[in-house]
Amino acid sequence: MFEKCLPPIYWDGDAVAILDQRVLPHQEKILLCTKPQQVVTAIKNMSIRGAPAVGVAGAMALALGAYHIQAADTRTFKRKFVRLCEQVKNARPTGNNLSWAVEKVYSVIQGNPDAEVPELQELIRRKADEILAQDVQDNLAIGKWGKEIIPRGAKILTYCNAGALATADYGTAVGVIRAAYAEDPTIEVYACETRPFLQGARLTAYELQCARIPVTLITDNSVGSLMQANGVDVVVVGADRIAANGDTANKIGTYTVAVLAHTHNVPFYVAAPRSTIDPTIPDGSAIPIEQRDPREVTHFFGRPIAPKEVKALNPAFDVTPNKYIHGIITEVGILRKPFKQSIRKALQES
Amino acid sequence: MFEKCLPPIYWDGDAVAILDQRVLPHQEKILLCTKPQQVVTAIKNMSIRGAPAVGVAGAMALALGAYHIQAADTRTFKRKFVRLCEQVKNARPTGNNLSWAVEKVYSVIQGNPDAEVPELQELIRRKADEILAQDVQDNLAIGKWGKEIIPRGAKILTYCNAGALATADYGTAVGVIRAAYAEDPTIEVYACETRPFLQGARLTAYELQCARIPVTLITDNSVGSLMQANGVDVVVVGADRIAANGDTANKIGTYTVAVLAHTHNVPFYVAAPRSTIDPTIPDGSAIPIEQRDPREVTHFFGRPIAPKEVKALNPAFDVTPNKYIHGIITEVGILRKPFKQSIRKALQES
Repeated sequence: MFEKCLPPIYWDGDAVAILDQRVLPHQEKILLCTKPQQVVTAIKNMSIRGAPAVGVAGAMALALGAYHIQAADTRTFKRKFVRLCEQVKNARPTGNNLSWAVEKVYSVIQGNPDAEVPELQELIRRKADEILAQDVQDNLAIGKWGKEIIPRGAKILTYCNAGALATADYGTAVGVIRAAYAEDPTIEVYACETRPFLQGARLTAYELQCARIPVTLITDNSVGSLMQANGVDVVVVGADRIAANGDTANKIGTYTVAVLAHTHNVPFYVAAPRSTIDPTIPDGSAIPIEQRDPREVTHFFGRPIAPKEVKALNPAFDVTPNKYIHGIITEVGILRKPFKQSIRKALQES
Repeated sequence: MFEKCLPPIYWDGDAVAILDQRVLPHQEKILLCTKPQQVVTAIKNMSIRGAPAVGVAGAMALALGAYHIQAADTRTFKRKFVRLCEQVKNARPTGNNLSWAVEKVYSVIQGNPDAEVPELQELIRRKADEILAQDVQDNLAIGKWGKEIIPRGAKILTYCNAGALATADYGTAVGVIRAAYAEDPTIEVYACETRPFLQGARLTAYELQCARIPVTLITDNSVGSLMQANGVDVVVVGADRIAANGDTANKIGTYTVAVLAHTHNVPFYVAAPRSTIDPTIPDGSAIPIEQRDPREVTHFFGRPIAPKEVKALNPAFDVTPNKYIHGIITEVGILRKPFKQSIRKALQES
């Protein structure tokens, strides 16, 4: 259906295969995880990243773990499985899809109180597969809805990587771009490099090149001058967690892009499946922001780029207030303001 | 007077010694230039950078070149010297101080129509030394005026490197920070890393560490979230060229910081000597913006960080419109709005 690179995660026999995104685009290295803890580590060290992909990885870690649990009876199995759920859920704090996926998988246990261990293992695996398949379907639907907001011949700016690599496949923001490009090959994309992990330079540029969609790489600090020169028609980004009022946590730097878009009257859209929405959080102030190792800022491929022992901050995400967001593109349509109402309604749809 | 690292440029006997800023802070490598073309190359490849430092380097390149010109008579000397002036002036296009310094040195020729070659060589060398010494004096004065705008215990954000390394010594924006710190050791600095050349991470963090001024390194894309959390009290940056109306060209990303400061009601100051002001340019739209090699964006220490043959933009500067600037801190005081008038007045002062 679309030209693509390797998928970010898949079953290889009984193992979970993860494409190591830390070494892309120069190496296509597969991490073969035979134990759930290996998947958790891959999530923590960002071998796999992107909220929807992390959600899928969490579900697959649970399926893998379910097969490995040594339990003489169902009760022991459930106790051990709950502990595993906690471990998986805590791998990274900001993205909503991980806890959403864990809850979803855990519901199998709750929904089948009388099932024996082998049946539970099978049902858990099926649920994980369902989450993976559903994510691709959701992204295709996001693309279908989202392409409508891309003007003909648009210069689209995207941030970080909200592509196939950030999801089960196809992508959210990049899915919108793919769908638009299929109908209008005159569109062009600016990919912000996205420091410190360079998801834009390493992953988005790579995905768009695979799909032969024209892409130009820019440093994050060029967005202002590019918009000043009327170089951007629309911004589309992904999301890690969306509060009930539409405030959106996404990769650090997204908020800056939103402020710049607002200043230059450029529409700013968020593309995400409903699994990214956290209706329990009223607004962005309550979204937990992961602080990562400062060495990711002070070092580059293990090489220092700053003086020794310099203090550094490394917040992995920031929050864009709903006022800067023109619409949230989901699999059930584009949600508009007031988001509190449109989000509530979207979550009620089947 | 102040704790410091190596100076960026100085005479080593008859040679111009340049501290290679491309390899700082890990290596303190000196480039010994015995020919003016070597200084021009060092300016082009950013071994020395920062508008005032580049101005000083240009003057010293001319002094060095003047000694090397083979000329049987004064007329030949002048002809060859004019050609050298053109070469030096064109080394980099955006910063004003380079052409200002070249004009200043060239005025020696114009002011001494009857001088013989050895006398001209001596006068040119003296003019270059004067430009170097004056730049340090200007920066000390900028610090003296500028410290007044730093609130007690302020968290100051600076961008790129407008420090000792960007000038003859002491620095412009960093000069303001040094002067403020001398009176109030409770201030703290955020240094933006400044992609792609990392002047903030490599140079500003290093200078501030040398001066024992508390510094925290952040990625450029963190500025928005830091200001959102009320983490910044004032912004002070340098400048490469200031138009007659106060519009200011500075390192790419400065404009984005200015927009963010405006959005968060954080005062935004420019610190620069009057040699950075170009009264012949009415506003920022006429400032030439240098476009550098995209490989500086796609590669990192020679290592690719993006897929092969990806297109990239690498504008070295952007322009901040005067409306975002609270004041321009010069050696003759802080210029306020309307800048057209305050700039004209400042240029008339001796």
